[in-house]
Amino acid sequence: MIHSLSLSDVLAEHARSRPQVTAVVDGDVRLTYPELDARVTRLASALADRGVAAGDRVLWLGQNAHAVLELLLACSRLGAIFCPANWRQSEDELRFIRTDLTPAAVVWEPSDATTSLHAQSTAAPASSEGSGEGQAPSGAGAAENGTMVWVRAGEDYEELVASGSVREFPQVADTEPTLALYTAAFAGRPNAALLSSAALIAHSASLLVVRQMEPGFTFLNNGPLFHVGTMMFCLATLQIGGTNVFTPAFDAEEVCRLIDAERVTQAFLFGQMIDAVVKANAGGKYDLSSLRFVSHSAEWDSMITVDDSPWCRSKMGGYGQTEVGGMLTFLGLAEGGAGFAGRPSPLVQVRILGPDDSEMPPGEVGEICARGKSLFSGYFARPDLNAEKSRNGWHHTGDLGRREPDGTITFIGPKLRMIKSGAENIYPAEVERALKSHPAVADAAVIGIPDPTWHQAVKAVVALKADGVATADELIEHVKKQVASYKKPREVAFVDTIPKRGFTPDYDALDAAHGGGNYPGL
Amino acid sequence: MIHSLSLSDVLAEHARSRPQVTAVVDGDVRLTYPELDARVTRLASALADRGVAAGDRVLWLGQNAHAVLELLLACSRLGAIFCPANWRQSEDELRFIRTDLTPAAVVWEPSDATTSLHAQSTAAPASSEGSGEGQAPSGAGAAENGTMVWVRAGEDYEELVASGSVREFPQVADTEPTLALYTAAFAGRPNAALLSSAALIAHSASLLVVRQMEPGFTFLNNGPLFHVGTMMFCLATLQIGGTNVFTPAFDAEEVCRLIDAERVTQAFLFGQMIDAVVKANAGGKYDLSSLRFVSHSAEWDSMITVDDSPWCRSKMGGYGQTEVGGMLTFLGLAEGGAGFAGRPSPLVQVRILGPDDSEMPPGEVGEICARGKSLFSGYFARPDLNAEKSRNGWHHTGDLGRREPDGTITFIGPKLRMIKSGAENIYPAEVERALKSHPAVADAAVIGIPDPTWHQAVKAVVALKADGVATADELIEHVKKQVASYKKPREVAFVDTIPKRGFTPDYDALDAAHGGGNYPGL
Repeated sequence: MIHSLSLSDVLAEHARSRPQVTAVVDGDVRLTYPELDARVTRLASALADRGVAAGDRVLWLGQNAHAVLELLLACSRLGAIFCPANWRQSEDELRFIRTDLTPAAVVWEPSDATTSLHAQSTAAPASSEGSGEGQAPSGAGAAENGTMVWVRAGEDYEELVASGSVREFPQVADTEPTLALYTAAFAGRPNAALLSSAALIAHSASLLVVRQMEPGFTFLNNGPLFHVGTMMFCLATLQIGGTNVFTPAFDAEEVCRLIDAERVTQAFLFGQMIDAVVKANAGGKYDLSSLRFVSHSAEWDSMITVDDSPWCRSKMGGYGQTEVGGMLTFLGLAEGGAGFAGRPSPLVQVRILGPDDSEMPPGEVGEICARGKSLFSGYFARPDLNAEKSRNGWHHTGDLGRREPDGTITFIGPKLRMIKSGAENIYPAEVERALKSHPAVADAAVIGIPDPTWHQAVKAVVALKADGVATADELIEHVKKQVASYKKPREVAFVDTIPKRGFTPDYDALDAAHGGGNYPGL
Repeated sequence: MIHSLSLSDVLAEHARSRPQVTAVVDGDVRLTYPELDARVTRLASALADRGVAAGDRVLWLGQNAHAVLELLLACSRLGAIFCPANWRQSEDELRFIRTDLTPAAVVWEPSDATTSLHAQSTAAPASSEGSGEGQAPSGAGAAENGTMVWVRAGEDYEELVASGSVREFPQVADTEPTLALYTAAFAGRPNAALLSSAALIAHSASLLVVRQMEPGFTFLNNGPLFHVGTMMFCLATLQIGGTNVFTPAFDAEEVCRLIDAERVTQAFLFGQMIDAVVKANAGGKYDLSSLRFVSHSAEWDSMITVDDSPWCRSKMGGYGQTEVGGMLTFLGLAEGGAGFAGRPSPLVQVRILGPDDSEMPPGEVGEICARGKSLFSGYFARPDLNAEKSRNGWHHTGDLGRREPDGTITFIGPKLRMIKSGAENIYPAEVERALKSHPAVADAAVIGIPDPTWHQAVKAVVALKADGVATADELIEHVKKQVASYKKPREVAFVDTIPKRGFTPDYDALDAAHGGGNYPGL
């Protein structure tokens, strides 16, 4: 255990190494690392007193708050698994998560769905759902007999923390899962990807390298913490002993205020969010110069400090998924490279594998597979899926990609969504990229529709810009100029917005609305 | 094994991700990553064919060369352990290493000592040394029956590489030791610290963060590769897919030429070496502007690019030892901090522990203890010492230190060399720092001499600058102004140079020459 380093250990070290550094800012709450460490110990004790044991799950249903980080760290200290879930999901979706995850404790903010779920879970047995939660709490062994502790965020949560005692916890191996994030709804229902401390810390190390984070880094958690995109920066900021600022959700004016007040180094910002921030800060009401970010527009660049780290130097991002801890490849490690997804993180290996798991030569499409320090530990309670996804010692991402001759990686699209037309494989991402390059197009997604002759045909779903004008024929011609003719859409449907699941089109919804189907991979 | 990442794996990934990047430059030799990967596979095959198996040791006795990196990577591929040893040691010292390490293969450059060792080892049984090596090679099982393969560096080594076949090797767990570096001569003889791929890669990650290394980084290996100080940068450069340039040893003119020709980003340079480089480059014969390094003198700063990474921003370094993979703490993570050694790497924990292994409060001296991702796997064949050094789950560095109130760490000095005078503990490093602050002093070391009344008294050994003038009384007065009076030297011996073991004074030699002894820790 001399080599083990858990998230709880990282916090314990910072409490000694950085006694005066602010770890957390959330509204009026400001905690130094020793204060955060002390609260996490009390919280872990209080959860243990209520029956939460090593391996048990603790569920968060709420917006961003410093409680999210505290609960994660307390679970790491206990050897338990913390799951921050998307509280804006429907009651049915939340019920699925509760039944699937069988949490020993739930910390929740009231919404219609969470309130109803809470009422059901605490009022009467819910045995019809196939799990025994909802029975009256019995003290110890809460998880084993299926009962749950429900704690409301806010005052009740503060009472919970205050009720905990100061005690020593045995060391927890950093290979134990400590975070569960729902993702990957292959069959309509999501799966909880389990991430160990070792994986999360390795991923943080790769972000520290590529983003060149250093002490003093202050991250504004304005994106959702149930998504790895925000969580990964929160944890990298923790790793380097920086400051995490929490705000419930994205609000352009509030983001400006917090950047100014807390001298924020980085926030979770993309395209339209950046435009909204620029608009909110028209006239330079707030000083955003502490933000070191990627160049976007002349106005934006004049407000912030354009950062020169590999992460920010040209285009942010790369290829990633929750199952690899966040990012698998970084554009910043492949300046001038041919591949749209950059090069692998220094702590992983990537292989492009064919259907029989043999390696594909550069230039040929196969499944993006990975191995290395930041990889997840499988999905919670999915032994068959886990065996399938990790066959032959490689994690199979379910995404198609290509190694370019210069060694960089191009992400092609989800394997299950590959469209088959005649003998040809068509990857939606490639066609979508062509569509989006048309000046009138704001967003686009491509689906396969059943075709009696060719098995499937390509259909484009397009959202035009507010002032954009383009006919279906024009768009089809535009695509044909960029990709092989057999890949061009046969039909174009115009919509106001493309439905999303996270950052990617919600292809299930698009198929349902626009007649998609017959995918060979599904 | 999906989470395992060995040095061999890192090379295999670079061969795919960076097919056009130069991995190695050594004289006329230039190898891309795929070329290096192919040579390492052949070398591993050739070693396996000669009986080198997983767990066996391979010894390098020679100057810096790209063969050092190739042998390390081939050992990683095989699951064997590579040891680059200081070939300038005496024949007696080399014989100790051969007997201690029982290598299955030795790659050597001829010197008086190595030639004699080779002759002894291959000519006749050497059973009087307590090991069976020296018997005629028998093909397979070389290590087990104590025989050794001897290969001369240069042509014979090239023949060895060429003789190897291309084959697949089974995955080796990254927790297996893969590098052995002799260090820590506690009882007069050194011990081989074993470092796993996981530890070396974690240490590289910490260097990548603090030095802000990125693709394109080119490191000049001009310091000795048997020392962790050079090896750690060689491996971090490998990790980020940069270029390692090798030169046999430090030569100021050649260093200038290589920096210019290879656009070197960093070399292994300190104080007097930097002065020598400045002198060799008088008149700006070479373009050193690619070097991104720490500020040193106006002349130096005008030749190079002063780097702004945490590693270079103020003072390089921190506290480290081979047993922690290189650096345990970094000055660059504690700008403005009180402690002389900075703050811990993001991938370790540090505790200052008292004699009973309880934690010392800030401000009080105890042993620097560590845990985390970059730590070694113990010394080769030293079970008792390993148990002692890793008691209670913490690596005991054998060095004394202090946590300052701001959380930073101060390194005090080796525990075994603590001087006891009356009831007081005196740490040589503190007195040495005071002596070295005198303008006439070039170098200084402090020892304890037996004292009938006080147990020990402090004696200073001082080397004055060429133009420096100072009497013993003056120096004692100078020290008294900076530290408590009981710490001041009672005697001062003047010498031309302080003998060194690596970068620290050779206290054994100083004790022998100047009457030291009676240390409570020894």
